[in-house]
Amino acid sequence: MAKTGLVLGVDIGGTNTALGLIDREGICHGADSMPTRGDQPVQEFFRRLNERAQGLLGAVGGGFELLGIGMGAPNANYARCTIENPPNLSWNHVDLRAEWAPYFRAIVAATNDANAAALGEMRFGAARGLKDFIVITLGTGLGSGIVVDGRMVYGSTGLAGELGHLIVDPEGRLCGCGRRGCLETYASATGLLRTVSELLEGGSRATELRDIPRGELTSRRVFEAARRGDEVALEAFRITGEILGRKLADAVVFSSPEAIILFGGLAGAGELLFGPTRRAMEANLFPVFRGTVKLLPSGIQGNAAILGAAALGWEALAQGAQTSRGDGKG
Amino acid sequence: MAKTGLVLGVDIGGTNTALGLIDREGICHGADSMPTRGDQPVQEFFRRLNERAQGLLGAVGGGFELLGIGMGAPNANYARCTIENPPNLSWNHVDLRAEWAPYFRAIVAATNDANAAALGEMRFGAARGLKDFIVITLGTGLGSGIVVDGRMVYGSTGLAGELGHLIVDPEGRLCGCGRRGCLETYASATGLLRTVSELLEGGSRATELRDIPRGELTSRRVFEAARRGDEVALEAFRITGEILGRKLADAVVFSSPEAIILFGGLAGAGELLFGPTRRAMEANLFPVFRGTVKLLPSGIQGNAAILGAAALGWEALAQGAQTSRGDGKG
Repeated sequence: MAKTGLVLGVDIGGTNTALGLIDREGICHGADSMPTRGDQPVQEFFRRLNERAQGLLGAVGGGFELLGIGMGAPNANYARCTIENPPNLSWNHVDLRAEWAPYFRAIVAATNDANAAALGEMRFGAARGLKDFIVITLGTGLGSGIVVDGRMVYGSTGLAGELGHLIVDPEGRLCGCGRRGCLETYASATGLLRTVSELLEGGSRATELRDIPRGELTSRRVFEAARRGDEVALEAFRITGEILGRKLADAVVFSSPEAIILFGGLAGAGELLFGPTRRAMEANLFPVFRGTVKLLPSGIQGNAAILGAAALGWEALAQGAQTSRGDGKG
Repeated sequence: MAKTGLVLGVDIGGTNTALGLIDREGICHGADSMPTRGDQPVQEFFRRLNERAQGLLGAVGGGFELLGIGMGAPNANYARCTIENPPNLSWNHVDLRAEWAPYFRAIVAATNDANAAALGEMRFGAARGLKDFIVITLGTGLGSGIVVDGRMVYGSTGLAGELGHLIVDPEGRLCGCGRRGCLETYASATGLLRTVSELLEGGSRATELRDIPRGELTSRRVFEAARRGDEVALEAFRITGEILGRKLADAVVFSSPEAIILFGGLAGAGELLFGPTRRAMEANLFPVFRGTVKLLPSGIQGNAAILGAAALGWEALAQGAQTSRGDGKG
């Protein structure tokens, strides 16, 4: 009997790295995690990662085979299959295929976290059956993965889809990229906190947020306050959604997606964020696109980052097969 | 001997319709034009268009055969192969395949003028060999055609790529679409004239433009004045390029193109427009994209609109062939 194919999905984070064996249907046949230890040499990281992967493969037994490896990582370049100057890691330039070569002969593909999330939604989540959609990841920053006609947009540099760096206001908030007014300085967990700070400084409304020491204020606490009806917290979500919705309206004229999926920590705020975002997007859409774009939550159950990375591996396998067929014809 | 294949390229304009027979290499084997007469029934238009096409085909003789028809038209929907509520034409909804059916059995494809221009640049012009680029058409309005990984972006509605309706300023100039501050109200021939009007009203600088009656002011006259060193005319081009460049920087984070091609009447102003546009784009780019995007003039010789429409026909033929091969495998 033919063996069941698996892809190893790996999500490299600044602190922890998660991995899992995912089949074609998105079922996880074993998962693990380990500290990333980005201060140590990258070869050491791959030695440990291989040990964990071998452990998972040993546990599933002989009825399975590893076909591919998909990796989501900060500053991963899809075109070159590299990680380049990742923030919070000491690795500079990592050739992922070369690092895997001593251990596996599987196909290796990598992209950034947001693109992996988009591929995960397309294969296993809210974007199943959709050909044109955008995934917005709302975490510390704002990432995005754009799919056009069923294919991820990587662009000439492999780095396309940086909607977190659309400019909201050229004289606006200072961004980590060195410019001012980038969308992610407003629409992200960090952006929400900056908005709360501005509201606290600019007014004297009663709010429980004023009692929280600055270093302890988190987007979760703003969310909890908003659910209790705290006006400043509600206002902060309204402002965040309003700015996000306006820029999503700009994104729609670009690729006319059927859906925009909000993903990641801040998206867990539900209607507190989705409501104002949807209203602002719809009110600011170019008329022909009104009513054509759904705003959806993620449809991924379980470890979304591993599933997204694995979806990239499955896509690379499908493309490899297609290329082989194409070559055969020529 | 095999016959040489031709595609009929048709560019439907509000006043005139141009057509031509274009071979695979972009060589024109005969062209013609006729009044569009958008006030008359669309069936009458196609009867006349067929007569002209038959005339061109008769003239090239028996060594050629018509394989496809590509059409560029205002409000053309690629996905449905229709024209929908075209401005300045009385036709409402036109099913282009049905209208051609009595006359030809060739493949028919249609898209808007800007997408046709992008396909023309890709096949015959400045984008030959490029896989990721954007064409911006600067005429009465601002149109755009976006190509990602060698394929036109149509989106879920077939209407993607409306960069003329990116919002520059939510409280800005009133746009024909009913919103405020759309890019095309600044960066287009009309936008340039609005900028000139604002400069004339807002200042008393000496300028030859002040002597031109309002109804006679055209972008060409502003261009000519700028070439003679007229300060207001130069300032109007600077402002136009500055706004265009800023929004092109936003477009780059979306698809990371290798090149942006400026096309159409206003692009003929050359460095007067390209200079400030390039500087503003580069200064406002997200750092990883700096130095990665070329700003280019059109590379199309001759009738660009016919060549663009024909390029669409050639693309449809290639895709049809690919689909047939795909079906054969299945």
